[in-house]
Amino acid sequence: MSAATHPRRVLDIERLVAPHSIAIVGASNDPKSISGQPLRFLLQHGYRSVLYPVNPKYAAIEGVECHPDIVSLPRTPDLALILVAARRVPDMLRECGRKGIRYAIVYGSGFAEAGEAGAALQRECADVAGEFGIRVIGPNCQGVVSTGANVYAGFGAPFGVDYRAGGLSLISQSGGFGCALLLMADELGIGLRHFITTGNEADVSLLDLVDACIDDDETSLIAAYIEGLKDARRLVGVATRALDAGKPLLAWKVGNTADGAKAAASHTANLGGASALYRTAFRQAGVIEVNDVADLGDYAKAFEAKRLPRGNRIAVVTLSGGAGILITDACCERGMSVPPLSPATLDALRPIVPAFASLANPVDLTAGILAEPQIFTDALQIIADDPGIDSIAIMAAAASGDVALAMAEAIVRVHRATDKPLMLAWNARRDMASEAYRVIEAAGVPLYATPVRCGRAFAVLSDYAQARRTRAAARAERAPASDRLRAGTARALIAQGPADLTEHAAQRLLAHYDIGTPKSALAKTRDEACAFARTSGFPLVVKVQSPDIPHKTEAGAVRVGIRDEAMLASAFDEIVANARRHVPGARIDGVLVQEEISDAVEMIVGIDDDPSFGPAVMCGLGGIYAEVLKDVAWRLAPVTRGQAHEMIRELRAFAMLDGARGKPRCDVDALADAIVAVSAMALDLAPELKEFDINPLFVLPAGNGVRAGDAFARCAPRAAGEREDEPEAGQRAQAIVDG
Amino acid sequence: MSAATHPRRVLDIERLVAPHSIAIVGASNDPKSISGQPLRFLLQHGYRSVLYPVNPKYAAIEGVECHPDIVSLPRTPDLALILVAARRVPDMLRECGRKGIRYAIVYGSGFAEAGEAGAALQRECADVAGEFGIRVIGPNCQGVVSTGANVYAGFGAPFGVDYRAGGLSLISQSGGFGCALLLMADELGIGLRHFITTGNEADVSLLDLVDACIDDDETSLIAAYIEGLKDARRLVGVATRALDAGKPLLAWKVGNTADGAKAAASHTANLGGASALYRTAFRQAGVIEVNDVADLGDYAKAFEAKRLPRGNRIAVVTLSGGAGILITDACCERGMSVPPLSPATLDALRPIVPAFASLANPVDLTAGILAEPQIFTDALQIIADDPGIDSIAIMAAAASGDVALAMAEAIVRVHRATDKPLMLAWNARRDMASEAYRVIEAAGVPLYATPVRCGRAFAVLSDYAQARRTRAAARAERAPASDRLRAGTARALIAQGPADLTEHAAQRLLAHYDIGTPKSALAKTRDEACAFARTSGFPLVVKVQSPDIPHKTEAGAVRVGIRDEAMLASAFDEIVANARRHVPGARIDGVLVQEEISDAVEMIVGIDDDPSFGPAVMCGLGGIYAEVLKDVAWRLAPVTRGQAHEMIRELRAFAMLDGARGKPRCDVDALADAIVAVSAMALDLAPELKEFDINPLFVLPAGNGVRAGDAFARCAPRAAGEREDEPEAGQRAQAIVDG
Repeated sequence: MSAATHPRRVLDIERLVAPHSIAIVGASNDPKSISGQPLRFLLQHGYRSVLYPVNPKYAAIEGVECHPDIVSLPRTPDLALILVAARRVPDMLRECGRKGIRYAIVYGSGFAEAGEAGAALQRECADVAGEFGIRVIGPNCQGVVSTGANVYAGFGAPFGVDYRAGGLSLISQSGGFGCALLLMADELGIGLRHFITTGNEADVSLLDLVDACIDDDETSLIAAYIEGLKDARRLVGVATRALDAGKPLLAWKVGNTADGAKAAASHTANLGGASALYRTAFRQAGVIEVNDVADLGDYAKAFEAKRLPRGNRIAVVTLSGGAGILITDACCERGMSVPPLSPATLDALRPIVPAFASLANPVDLTAGILAEPQIFTDALQIIADDPGIDSIAIMAAAASGDVALAMAEAIVRVHRATDKPLMLAWNARRDMASEAYRVIEAAGVPLYATPVRCGRAFAVLSDYAQARRTRAAARAERAPASDRLRAGTARALIAQGPADLTEHAAQRLLAHYDIGTPKSALAKTRDEACAFARTSGFPLVVKVQSPDIPHKTEAGAVRVGIRDEAMLASAFDEIVANARRHVPGARIDGVLVQEEISDAVEMIVGIDDDPSFGPAVMCGLGGIYAEVLKDVAWRLAPVTRGQAHEMIRELRAFAMLDGARGKPRCDVDALADAIVAVSAMALDLAPELKEFDINPLFVLPAGNGVRAGDAFARCAPRAAGEREDEPEAGQRAQAIVDG
Repeated sequence: MSAATHPRRVLDIERLVAPHSIAIVGASNDPKSISGQPLRFLLQHGYRSVLYPVNPKYAAIEGVECHPDIVSLPRTPDLALILVAARRVPDMLRECGRKGIRYAIVYGSGFAEAGEAGAALQRECADVAGEFGIRVIGPNCQGVVSTGANVYAGFGAPFGVDYRAGGLSLISQSGGFGCALLLMADELGIGLRHFITTGNEADVSLLDLVDACIDDDETSLIAAYIEGLKDARRLVGVATRALDAGKPLLAWKVGNTADGAKAAASHTANLGGASALYRTAFRQAGVIEVNDVADLGDYAKAFEAKRLPRGNRIAVVTLSGGAGILITDACCERGMSVPPLSPATLDALRPIVPAFASLANPVDLTAGILAEPQIFTDALQIIADDPGIDSIAIMAAAASGDVALAMAEAIVRVHRATDKPLMLAWNARRDMASEAYRVIEAAGVPLYATPVRCGRAFAVLSDYAQARRTRAAARAERAPASDRLRAGTARALIAQGPADLTEHAAQRLLAHYDIGTPKSALAKTRDEACAFARTSGFPLVVKVQSPDIPHKTEAGAVRVGIRDEAMLASAFDEIVANARRHVPGARIDGVLVQEEISDAVEMIVGIDDDPSFGPAVMCGLGGIYAEVLKDVAWRLAPVTRGQAHEMIRELRAFAMLDGARGKPRCDVDALADAIVAVSAMALDLAPELKEFDINPLFVLPAGNGVRAGDAFARCAPRAAGEREDEPEAGQRAQAIVDG
């Protein structure tokens, strides 16, 4: 029976992290050993419900009655902590199952991270979990903390710290690094809700827990430390649910370089998905990306204030010019703007600020203003009230002592009087401005050590607010999902023998998804070619069609720029003669006569079916440029029309579509439609269709649509037991439309 | 008399920051005022030589005799601190000059940062400085600190701190932010040599001071905080001197976005050079770029250990898998490699490490090894001795208590026994491992709070070591400087009337610098065209040449792909007829018959003469791609052949030159030669030649050279008094070679 089959496998995070009773299987009376620690930490932090140490060696540990085995426990505990050696874990899980225990945490290592034997042991654990409907955290994890119920069920010094309760739930695949983040958040005064380390994820995944935390009322902010998601295809869905719930999701994805990914695989055996797709998924679903410990603290602090800006326009108020430059760079590099203040604001400021103040934004009030706290307060309030400003940054420089205290009080007053995000950077040493820092922190005004970090936090708030607005707009616009009928027809089109998945099939597949191709006809004779030309007009391209001549250009079997019937007739004869000379005895099906596309920008639109993320859709500059210049935008399917437009605009090549150098603007709407159509095709044909590219896709001037040039498809190896009439396993079939 | 004309303007940093006597002009007896502070700070820190407060209002300040004016001072002081209001500063400088004072620091604001009147005042100061040969720091600066002589000549709380003496000299254009960096360096235990704030730089520039610090024996490391360098063209030279002297130069350039640059201009009125050129100059001369306060501390710490790696291969030794992934990503993203250890190393490690240890690099010894410090030491030493490893990173995770101390002692032993860079990341809270931290710090082993920051510091060491190696190689290879004779001829070629700077002139200019152009001839008749074709061969391109038809393609006056004489003859007649029809009465000089270039990659090579940096040379993908895709590499002239090859390899487009998709490899050597030639042209023709592009430059298959397609030149507006026969001011002359 596989792990996915048990009917009652819902994850109730309340039962998991705030259990009414806990069995500690393999508990030791050696307080230094790993198996000796969870019981002691639970007792130390005042866990209020029932504890059942299980170990035949002891009658009691730390004064708590010890039981010889799981079966003999007086009641069924909510949660079992499994601290025995790896090889004994499957049996212990079976005993838990028989006892009716629904949640277990497995701490030990020696599983998938330790070679094939360990991997087999881990699969056995997953099977047992599935069989009995136990939800298992781990193995190879460090435990959990939940502040609401005083649950500190783990090992290592960080479980000895008392964490302030709050809204942050932190889920980490790494125990060690998870603990480091936990300590850092605590030092910054960020209160904790749940902390869960997931280790090898034999059963419960990080995304399962993120998903569960979205529904936890006390969780207001979720942070995830990710080495690799085996269920990455759920990422966009879970993250979008968090976005809808207004619970910011901060994600730190590590293992992004080839060597780093290798290191991640050998750590918690988590490996999933192309690295670039994580960034794609994060952007697509408003996940805030974190790159070091300090980022997590900085961003969490910004979100704790629970204010989002209405736009990306920031006013910078500074006492020191240098800090103003720094935060301006940090904000503008990340898409914010530092616009001039409104004329009304300037009129109100001018009479009250010192003579040397600069009212350009950044507004430099100069250190002199601190001599008059009321004027500082008034100036700040006037700026905060500017309707053209969405956020306010205050650069307090190194102000210290009494002056700093007066400034802090002014800032707190204005912070209370506005609903816009207001945050500050202050680089006085703490001992030089301790009282002022206390006032700021007590009022919940986010405070940063440097202007750069403050600016980055503002940009994160702004990006998140933008993601919420985009999401609100997208909810109205449904992305086309897979359609059974359409998918069935499409599947039949690709399900022909490899020799048959040709130009003709590709054209039908493209037509099925309403993607245009150049007008063309297969002419057997010069007269047929000329007859087509009379309806199509010029210029034309002609190409010999022969299964024996794959490289037409080398054979002289292609001619472009045909401008009249005489040229067409002579070109027809010439290329057929060339083809016969090049491959004597070649079978010639005819000559493809096709409209010549000019004034178009050549793009590529394609699909890659990632083993972890599922189908991803790409768009970039066509020809060989996509590959070489890496100017490519990705989205995970399904892609909405709005997202397709976003993809196009992300490309550096967008300037070419938008009429660079006086050329006509291209049909960007038709390109977006083609991207949406390819996304639909990806969903219809997954998982058989592994790869599909239209390259080039000619994008014509606005109003004239797109035309698919070449199309290339690669299908998956057929699994045993599939229908006989499906295509050959692992075939790499290229379908040529125009050359 | 201009500021540059006085003969005795050498900057003796010893006299400036360690003067034997100091006049304090405008000293106040109010300790809270700016003008009251320098005297008090000098006294507080035990400045050992003579102080002369100058102020007619007082007989003495703080017990030091006060003098009524500069002229009546008993001796000539080495340095004058000028603390009077802006409008009085020029007169005070004149008095200093008459007294023979050679160095002055001007603190006050109200100069170029405060509008045109202030700018005039600042120019006056610069003129006075030039007239009397005084070197002036400021105005609008915060002062200087020099630990060797106990000079604390500034205002603000940071001047009240006693800084540990050491090798760091910190030069900052911003007073406030300079002080923040100073405090941070001190907190990190980095010892200070000189701290100098330069403010508006009426006379002495930041680069003057960096240059002077290179020759200061006690300075081992130089850090610069830059808003904008008016003398940016000296940057590469000064930085290269620092590189040669083995004194790492850390630079933090701010004001990089459009809004940020505006903010910088209004702060210290420093604005100079295109932002991208700073990064170019930094890379070109081994300058280490810094982006926030923490970077500066992190990198300074790494350099303080005075070890450089021989290559970019790092061994990561970790007690926690998570940290290993992070540092691997951080290193690999920045060009380092984390290779497998050598077989001999693995053979030596296997018998001694714990069973669960992973010997792939990152080497995860697991926390268990700390139980046996000797084994940890031995394992570390074996890894450090691997000849395939250049640096060693230790990820100590959150080890704390006695275990941490044993680990720290082991690390220090191995650090002493190797000459390779060895640094560590450790995220235990300081109070949990205080003794261990003390041991590590006392031994001078660089220690970082996170694996990411540790990895970035390693990458900086590696880059710097690489820059030193590159520089050593480049010293052998002289970059071609300007050549008088060659320059004279070239100047004559561009110094023709605007109507004359044509195809012909451009071809001669390119030929003068040995840059190939396509074979071509101007044919007056069909017969002349065919005669050329008989020597040149086919395929050919033909184009009507007429001063009245600038847009030949639209006129139907171009035909490509001419394959034989019959086609040539009919194309000749056809395009001439088209041209006459398009512009009736057009003057037709003839038809340009030119070899058709195929199998080439189209690149662009060009020059931009930056007002601050001087001539910069660029290379990128040609056609409209350079502009749209921004895949361009820059270097400041002169460019060596080695640098030209570096530029080419930096491009994403390099893959196309290197034979992407089975195409032949292009003549990269010839492209590098063309870049070097264009660099020589840039130096020969500066400052008249403001802009020059060869676009496209056809790069043929290896061995076949390059051919310049179009060339475009823009010359500077001619200054008054230049020769009459030079080109028109501000002309924008386009010289067409092939189309």
